[in-house]
Amino acid sequence: MAVGDVTMPHMHVVKGVKIGSTQAYVRYPNRRDLVVFEFAEGSQVAGVFTQSAFAAAPVLLSKKHLNESSSAQQPRYLIINTGNANAATGKLGLENATKTCAKLAELAHVQPHQVLPFSTGVIGEQLPIERLLNGIQPALDTLDEASWTDAAFGIMTTDTVPKGASEQFELDGITYTMTGISKGAGMIRPNMATMLSFVATDAPISQAMVQQLLQTTVEHSFNRITIDGDTSTNDSCIFVATAQAGGNVIESSDDARYTVVLDVLTRIMNRLAQLIVRDGEGATKFITVTVEGGANTQECCDVAYSISDSPLIKTALFASDPNWGRIVMAIGKAGIQNLDSSKVQVWLGDVQICLDGGANPDYTEEMGAAVMAEKEITIRVDLGRGQAKDTVYTCDLSYDYVKINADYRS
Amino acid sequence: MAVGDVTMPHMHVVKGVKIGSTQAYVRYPNRRDLVVFEFAEGSQVAGVFTQSAFAAAPVLLSKKHLNESSSAQQPRYLIINTGNANAATGKLGLENATKTCAKLAELAHVQPHQVLPFSTGVIGEQLPIERLLNGIQPALDTLDEASWTDAAFGIMTTDTVPKGASEQFELDGITYTMTGISKGAGMIRPNMATMLSFVATDAPISQAMVQQLLQTTVEHSFNRITIDGDTSTNDSCIFVATAQAGGNVIESSDDARYTVVLDVLTRIMNRLAQLIVRDGEGATKFITVTVEGGANTQECCDVAYSISDSPLIKTALFASDPNWGRIVMAIGKAGIQNLDSSKVQVWLGDVQICLDGGANPDYTEEMGAAVMAEKEITIRVDLGRGQAKDTVYTCDLSYDYVKINADYRS
Repeated sequence: MAVGDVTMPHMHVVKGVKIGSTQAYVRYPNRRDLVVFEFAEGSQVAGVFTQSAFAAAPVLLSKKHLNESSSAQQPRYLIINTGNANAATGKLGLENATKTCAKLAELAHVQPHQVLPFSTGVIGEQLPIERLLNGIQPALDTLDEASWTDAAFGIMTTDTVPKGASEQFELDGITYTMTGISKGAGMIRPNMATMLSFVATDAPISQAMVQQLLQTTVEHSFNRITIDGDTSTNDSCIFVATAQAGGNVIESSDDARYTVVLDVLTRIMNRLAQLIVRDGEGATKFITVTVEGGANTQECCDVAYSISDSPLIKTALFASDPNWGRIVMAIGKAGIQNLDSSKVQVWLGDVQICLDGGANPDYTEEMGAAVMAEKEITIRVDLGRGQAKDTVYTCDLSYDYVKINADYRS
Repeated sequence: MAVGDVTMPHMHVVKGVKIGSTQAYVRYPNRRDLVVFEFAEGSQVAGVFTQSAFAAAPVLLSKKHLNESSSAQQPRYLIINTGNANAATGKLGLENATKTCAKLAELAHVQPHQVLPFSTGVIGEQLPIERLLNGIQPALDTLDEASWTDAAFGIMTTDTVPKGASEQFELDGITYTMTGISKGAGMIRPNMATMLSFVATDAPISQAMVQQLLQTTVEHSFNRITIDGDTSTNDSCIFVATAQAGGNVIESSDDARYTVVLDVLTRIMNRLAQLIVRDGEGATKFITVTVEGGANTQECCDVAYSISDSPLIKTALFASDPNWGRIVMAIGKAGIQNLDSSKVQVWLGDVQICLDGGANPDYTEEMGAAVMAEKEITIRVDLGRGQAKDTVYTCDLSYDYVKINADYRS
């Protein structure tokens, strides 16, 4: 059961993006498990990928293909399978990913490096490559502009809900659309490996600006969520601008239209990222952890992640226990040099629980318990040593988290 | 239920160490909650403490008192309460710890800095200082050499078993004793805050060598265990040499007797540290994570902790699921620069599950399942890039971990 409103919105069509999908029987029957995106010629594509040293074969190949793409010859297709991550699969894994791209390129009459592959699912098993290759033509046969919701379903693993966001916006009198999907029920799902997100707009944006927009917005969305502190082998996020709605190309961040696009993309990316937390494994609460008063962004993040990933805090959140000693513990272990604990303040919602490093004398358990009873909770920390601020989103740790992860493969 | 054999051994008396305890009613009735150690004049004392930026008042004061001690005027008393950590208690917390030392010093006719205070229990509440002060004389009245087991019970919080280790050894024809106790059911227990350990020998060892022995052995014992990745505000470990069994003082690590003492202390410290993991919150399995073939010790530890603290691996261990993709995920996310995944090998017990970064073709689920069915499991990783090796001890993550930590304060 996901936390809060996770309803799929109306998924506006993005001019220049078509989506096809099929059942390739990668792992389970009776489900769409192969999705193909087609982008109109002239689309500009940017990607960010997992930092894992065990990056999966499709991640390695997608990065290689993006590097080989010139601005004039950008990727035209994405191919995504669920059920198998093609991670920790060695040389054969890379060969299989390469074959997949070659086959799609051949059928679609593009260069192999114009196809980016993505996989999500079980780690350490080889792809059922014949079934996958046989699924490509059927997927191409269903290419259609109105299939975003099908795609959101088609990339799910143990997600309990499909995840999408869509907005329309206006620049110089032209109406543009931005639509995206994501999957993942943890920052990670090392088994059902992990987080994927695909966002497209029909606005005209240069390659450099597409890359800049993606990197700017991923930093505070997908790079600020955590379910369990684990990082997957397959995390990938792609942003595409097809230019098919017309208008002059946005080539600089000084262009006033850049700011509008940035705002829309920020909202879409934040929504897609937070949907993953709301659907976190076993999650019963959605937690916002804001750390301010830091000397720099890094230490704000270090403290926010120390709180967000602490199993002791996550279990207290599950139990609705305003156990603020655990928050102080997590601040203390975050590795901040020369932190003056007597300057630290902590709030649960609007209730100040820790004043100058000690218990707030005005605080009562009842006040804390009232905040903890909510489904959506904000933990706010002031480190009292600077102006930096950052926010991380997470969920609680419940019996169901253990159940899901202890039972999953059986 | 602790994992494996956690029986208290016969606790040999250490000449020059007396222990008293009483019920001071710090938090709960009907239990010993105040323990005093007395060391004979001439004892040499060393301590190591938590790295937390929110170090508790007794940690700050113990460090201060140790710094103020000359070799001739070493600490003579330890005073330890359970039920309240005196952490995140600000100025009043430090005043209370200071009062406790002053009162004991007055009653025992020593200097206040010759008393080291320790607290463990709930964070963020002030000590019931009057009850604590009133308990000191009754505790002193019971001082006795044979009370090590009473002390092991007297420092417990949510530990399910008392924890002790004891050995006798011979140096130049003299029989010496080394005995120690520890508490903690997590590397941490931020609520019932945490890990304490006290080890004493009646061998004659100089101040410098006592410190060196402690630092050397703590590094591979208490600094290599993790239950949940959380670090407490109160962790403290003390090693004392009373010299009361006679013999010439060991003043250098070149002394052949130093090596014998080091061996004994290593075994005692490893046992006391591993007992904490065996009694880890909700633990059903004891896990040894060995990482070899690293370029240096730090990266071996980074990978070992990444595996040991991964909730996804810990839940798979609980479920006896040989889910090796999760181990590969944890290696990948450990932040090792330029790791060549094609050189990585992974074993579960004696079964090689990952060969050259991919699935071992000879591996079957049945082989992995047989290892996972054991109560004591070794995960071994070879990074294939050097000669360094290190080992971390941990436990699994069960429903009971969530239950204990979600229900504890209610």
